[in-house]
Amino acid sequence: MTMNVDATNPELVTVGVPTHWYNLAAELETPIPPHLHSGTKEPVGPDDLVALFPGGLIAQEVSTEPYIEIPEPVREIYRMWRPSPLIRARRFEEALNTKAHIYVKYEGVSPVGSHKTNSAVAQAYYNSVDGVRKLTTETGAGQWGSALAFAGAQFGIDIEVWQVRASYDSKPYRGHLIRTYGGTLHPSPSDLTESGRAMLAKDPNTTGSLGMAVSEAVEVAAADPEARYALGSVLNHVVLHQSVIGQEAVAQLNEVESGADVVFGCAGGGSNLAGLSFPFLREKIHGRSNPRIVAAEPAACPSITQGEYRYDHGDVAGLTPLLKMHTLGMDFVPDPIHAGGLRYHGMAPALSHTVELGLVEGVAISQHDAFSAGVQFARTQGIVPAPESTHAIAACAAHVANSDKEEVVVIGLSGHGQLDLPAYAEFLDGKF
Amino acid sequence: MTMNVDATNPELVTVGVPTHWYNLAAELETPIPPHLHSGTKEPVGPDDLVALFPGGLIAQEVSTEPYIEIPEPVREIYRMWRPSPLIRARRFEEALNTKAHIYVKYEGVSPVGSHKTNSAVAQAYYNSVDGVRKLTTETGAGQWGSALAFAGAQFGIDIEVWQVRASYDSKPYRGHLIRTYGGTLHPSPSDLTESGRAMLAKDPNTTGSLGMAVSEAVEVAAADPEARYALGSVLNHVVLHQSVIGQEAVAQLNEVESGADVVFGCAGGGSNLAGLSFPFLREKIHGRSNPRIVAAEPAACPSITQGEYRYDHGDVAGLTPLLKMHTLGMDFVPDPIHAGGLRYHGMAPALSHTVELGLVEGVAISQHDAFSAGVQFARTQGIVPAPESTHAIAACAAHVANSDKEEVVVIGLSGHGQLDLPAYAEFLDGKF
Repeated sequence: MTMNVDATNPELVTVGVPTHWYNLAAELETPIPPHLHSGTKEPVGPDDLVALFPGGLIAQEVSTEPYIEIPEPVREIYRMWRPSPLIRARRFEEALNTKAHIYVKYEGVSPVGSHKTNSAVAQAYYNSVDGVRKLTTETGAGQWGSALAFAGAQFGIDIEVWQVRASYDSKPYRGHLIRTYGGTLHPSPSDLTESGRAMLAKDPNTTGSLGMAVSEAVEVAAADPEARYALGSVLNHVVLHQSVIGQEAVAQLNEVESGADVVFGCAGGGSNLAGLSFPFLREKIHGRSNPRIVAAEPAACPSITQGEYRYDHGDVAGLTPLLKMHTLGMDFVPDPIHAGGLRYHGMAPALSHTVELGLVEGVAISQHDAFSAGVQFARTQGIVPAPESTHAIAACAAHVANSDKEEVVVIGLSGHGQLDLPAYAEFLDGKF
Repeated sequence: MTMNVDATNPELVTVGVPTHWYNLAAELETPIPPHLHSGTKEPVGPDDLVALFPGGLIAQEVSTEPYIEIPEPVREIYRMWRPSPLIRARRFEEALNTKAHIYVKYEGVSPVGSHKTNSAVAQAYYNSVDGVRKLTTETGAGQWGSALAFAGAQFGIDIEVWQVRASYDSKPYRGHLIRTYGGTLHPSPSDLTESGRAMLAKDPNTTGSLGMAVSEAVEVAAADPEARYALGSVLNHVVLHQSVIGQEAVAQLNEVESGADVVFGCAGGGSNLAGLSFPFLREKIHGRSNPRIVAAEPAACPSITQGEYRYDHGDVAGLTPLLKMHTLGMDFVPDPIHAGGLRYHGMAPALSHTVELGLVEGVAISQHDAFSAGVQFARTQGIVPAPESTHAIAACAAHVANSDKEEVVVIGLSGHGQLDLPAYAEFLDGKF
């Protein structure tokens, strides 16, 4: 199966692995506000980014093309698990006593069990084209770090990962996974970087945050001419790569329904929800359907529903450019909730922009409600959802439970939660 | 997709979920030796088994029909993840510098990440037909226990699991999974049964074994008229249910190759290898291809290559009927290797029988060689194999490495190893 894009009408796709990434920004009436240089406050140009990113990704970050061809070496690896399944969750529907048709777009079938591989493979590829020898990165629960370690193994690139200490300590399995793929792992903050040492001096017992880990990885990449940095969410090129999720989902859904009424996704940095929902927004823009898009974020880190929409740094130390986004502030340290992938102070500029345009709405979900829905989903559908994904399931369940409305709803299941089972055990033990 | 069986030629199937289970024994010239009553030494009849198993499964245990229809409620659940993929492992081939075509039949896509769900769902169904309220069982690494807990949740049956203590202590995640599905979990030996208390009196520090855990689960089921027992391997009806693996694999392989030359599977109790290989032996019997079947067993528990072929009990306490099988002796306690699912003293009578007939050969693999192959597979193909499955990968790698022969080989990947990552970490740390 391949997903063919018709050159005269590129929105018409058939079920399979997409040949192109979809760039919603190119089809919006107002562009995404540019990233700004933290010193000059001027829009960043390619020269400002070459120390961190390869040319192919820099071009994608500012692209105004709606479709960008996926290089064959990337598609070859995508085919190892894509297209990911779109599953009708009939047993979950029965348990919720609803007439809604619930579809789950399931990214847990990837080698590492999450959607993160979609961008990791692309990023490793473009870095390999530029002859990069090493990539540094941060990771929360470990989905992104393990995805990049897998991708690095495919293209012969060394991967060095700083993992937020809260997750490093409580969930060692994904750290083992990173090492199994051949990657190197450090807890963050670490004493290996200036940023890390400064943070440890301030609070030796800090549980860390994604923003802190970003600072460490950026610092090491910037100082090594053969190394570059890779970010697992937030930036436009990451959102772009994740568009394979939504393109497949739209095509798969069109085989059995006439479009979606509501799309639910979890939102931390924003790439999973943007990747799922932007092709559905394409359908809306082109008048083929009119879906609501709901971003389910954790009550402990509610950047859309509680944050401000303004320029802010993507990291704690202020090493990244300024990004226009919904933010809780660059030094916000969320509670160490189990959905480590959602513990980020900001939200992807591309997704924040669609929120401002009224195309995406936010809802905050408590950890208890999220896991309660996750257990119900596991017992009916078998799949144990990632803690991140349980937020989208809970938002959907609250919307459709006991409803007579035959709505078509889609849940983005960003990954499986088999490596997060201690969190489920704590929930079952009544600890939250 | 459905797999249709042609009534006039039931071996002709198309790719999809099978409509029937395949019973190789019905097509062999000599039948599988019957199970014997441990007291009378006469073949067991249905009356001897009713305290443990429901009628539907007892009938399958002695069936002489080559095809048995899969009930629709079972097929409906199978469709949640079946057909499982048959993957050409091109990157692994490159790493091995071989011209062989390596195909992997991957059962890790099931809800619990292993092949065990194929029989768990069937067993829960037939018990629900008989009005059974509770099922007891044993589990090693936890694949079977979690599969039955999932299946119990689908049919409203309470599941109570005794897990071998070596795995219970070192790998708590699958225990959490059992609880997430709503099951109840005990370490074995436990002080809840007479068998367990006797074993603890003998050796309070025992790491346990599958044989011990079987005794406990059988004892509890036999004493409760509303409860029955479920076994995850060894018995004929379990082997039967697993035939969906091989039927799919034969059909999938026929789409791209003209049959298999060698089929490698790991063998503990034998159900995974039998499920994979018996439909390939059907192809051999009917003259359509001539595959070798290789059973890869752990050097620490080598029942085929080192055991005797004789009648023995399936458990330590001698509560089960006598089974004709390759056995290391009912009281053999293997080292606590990481492949918990292979730590069983015996081998399925159906598989042992094919070994005696010269249709299946055994090879013993060291834990070091198994994990070495597992890491190489993970780094090339992304999938982290279950420790059990790494034995089949290692056997295949040894056979095809640096070969110019364009053989078609199939590896049975019984599950993923994401919940066994601490074992990979120990291997990477040079601990074995």
